[in-house]
Amino acid sequence: MFDNKGKTEIAQLGEFGLIDLLTKSITLTQPSTIKGAGDDAAVLDFKDKKVLVSTDMLLEGIHFDLAYTPLKHLGYKAIQVNLSDIYAMNGTASQVTVSLGFSSKFPLEAVEELYSGMLLACDKYEIDLVGGDTTSSKQGLVISVTSLGYADENDIVYRNTAIEGDLICVSGDLGGAYMGLQLLEREKLIFLENPNIQPDLEGKDYIVERQLKPEARKDILNLLKDLKVKPSAMIDISDGLASEILHICKQSNKGCNLYEEKIPIDPMTYDTAREFNLDPTVCALSGGEDYELLFTVKQADYDKIKHNADISIIGHITEAAAGCNLVSKAGVVHELKAQGWNAFKGE
Amino acid sequence: MFDNKGKTEIAQLGEFGLIDLLTKSITLTQPSTIKGAGDDAAVLDFKDKKVLVSTDMLLEGIHFDLAYTPLKHLGYKAIQVNLSDIYAMNGTASQVTVSLGFSSKFPLEAVEELYSGMLLACDKYEIDLVGGDTTSSKQGLVISVTSLGYADENDIVYRNTAIEGDLICVSGDLGGAYMGLQLLEREKLIFLENPNIQPDLEGKDYIVERQLKPEARKDILNLLKDLKVKPSAMIDISDGLASEILHICKQSNKGCNLYEEKIPIDPMTYDTAREFNLDPTVCALSGGEDYELLFTVKQADYDKIKHNADISIIGHITEAAAGCNLVSKAGVVHELKAQGWNAFKGE
Repeated sequence: MFDNKGKTEIAQLGEFGLIDLLTKSITLTQPSTIKGAGDDAAVLDFKDKKVLVSTDMLLEGIHFDLAYTPLKHLGYKAIQVNLSDIYAMNGTASQVTVSLGFSSKFPLEAVEELYSGMLLACDKYEIDLVGGDTTSSKQGLVISVTSLGYADENDIVYRNTAIEGDLICVSGDLGGAYMGLQLLEREKLIFLENPNIQPDLEGKDYIVERQLKPEARKDILNLLKDLKVKPSAMIDISDGLASEILHICKQSNKGCNLYEEKIPIDPMTYDTAREFNLDPTVCALSGGEDYELLFTVKQADYDKIKHNADISIIGHITEAAAGCNLVSKAGVVHELKAQGWNAFKGE
Repeated sequence: MFDNKGKTEIAQLGEFGLIDLLTKSITLTQPSTIKGAGDDAAVLDFKDKKVLVSTDMLLEGIHFDLAYTPLKHLGYKAIQVNLSDIYAMNGTASQVTVSLGFSSKFPLEAVEELYSGMLLACDKYEIDLVGGDTTSSKQGLVISVTSLGYADENDIVYRNTAIEGDLICVSGDLGGAYMGLQLLEREKLIFLENPNIQPDLEGKDYIVERQLKPEARKDILNLLKDLKVKPSAMIDISDGLASEILHICKQSNKGCNLYEEKIPIDPMTYDTAREFNLDPTVCALSGGEDYELLFTVKQADYDKIKHNADISIIGHITEAAAGCNLVSKAGVVHELKAQGWNAFKGE
């Protein structure tokens, strides 16, 4: 928890004072930004490009727990989660707007900490923060981010354009963010029972970071461009692999076969899942929040991607009538369901 | 309050079922919308126009009280409040995204009611709802709307471009939304003390509607276009006349003289303020939520606008050193402050 002692009250500043203070540290760098924060609306110029818009809302108690989420990380993640949607369209993210609601008891320093994480993400991913809204909240911290980006019409990749025979690919590894969350939740409970016990996260940096500080996979778009591969369909993994591949299949009116043994799981995720008596595959399928890219490519592109350490080929697209299936390591075929925890119950 | 009896639980539908249900009633009509809800991001095409983006957040208990706010009106207002920002740039609003957070106990019918008000506003103002986010909330209803629009570069009107000698104009009348709120708050208290007493809003339709169902002044932009008047600076009135003219003056590095007798106040607003022992001028200056347009025009445009019933000329822009002043009906000069209630204390 943020320590409020000796901190500045926001009420002293007022809304406009706060906005002035927060926005003065913003530097605009994108050629597409004509006017940022400070007027009724931001003014942007995308010339002949198509414009991409996506929005997400993060609520305290639902999406994050301030007991173990540093505010700077939370700000960083709130931006990443949104940029990920623009990258999932194969677009270039360029601007965000940020609306914040927080208690009037929230000290200025806490808002600044949150904001600094947002600006760090913007700086690293070359994004302009061009506007937003700030309000008091009676109900905990509320964060709403809208991201804008652009792309040439021919470059945009939708969810509904997967074709039978396409290879199903995923970037990075899966299930880590979920196991990081389990770990943080466990340490929180231990701490609540006995505040003298320090959290034991030693050696678990990778999965804790996957949960607290995810990175949107802009680098994968660059990699695919270098490899001259344009995905046939793409989505980012926010709700878990199973849920996302079902979106692609449903919207493309196709089926799929995923192979359990091909699903990329980091050894730390695997071992921690075992420690918690969880099935690592289920964590990868249904854990969510990995913000990796799930995409399909033509079979003809196989040679271009097969040796890439950052991309795993985990299955292929089938006709709709074949359904959406997971082939287990033992060769057993299971129907894929969005909520893996129920789907795999009793196994 | 919405009656939950016999209503459908959202948990039965799940998030994706809910989104499918809400979005199926959306019809896209704007030429600039290529792809609406249903993918990671919406895809828009503004061709050679500049793009305008604005965002607002509405929180239960801060911005609205469900005790006297019908959900359909709330949805309608949430959209209007946002469109108003695009119009205040002299732009054409064309799309919105909507993020909603609500308790899992909120019945489906309540979400549909809220959404129907949003779609009504979109339909009336020719706006496409192109995306959003839906999440459960532990903390009451949360609404975040982002609006997009477009304009030719030369048509855009900023806040920081008022010039000395410009006339200060305002559309419609002021203070009504604030008095409507006072009335609703009073009737709520009476009802809480004695639930057998029915709310007495008879004959107060206009100011109640100003509070519950404001209309963004798209019509004023059309009027100014017909009159061949381009404002030199413009802002919409969400926080009250005093606060908004101070924004224009500060950002334009100018001062102003406003004349109390010229401030347009509807007789019902005036009488109700008197009933509540409030100064009607203070209500107009600091009440807020009128969503009228405040703008400045060249003196040369005086003849074009002087006989227009929808536009009042309330003062003029001065040099910065002269300060921002209100000239009272008695001819006394007061310094304008953003929070009129304090500024006028003891008078």
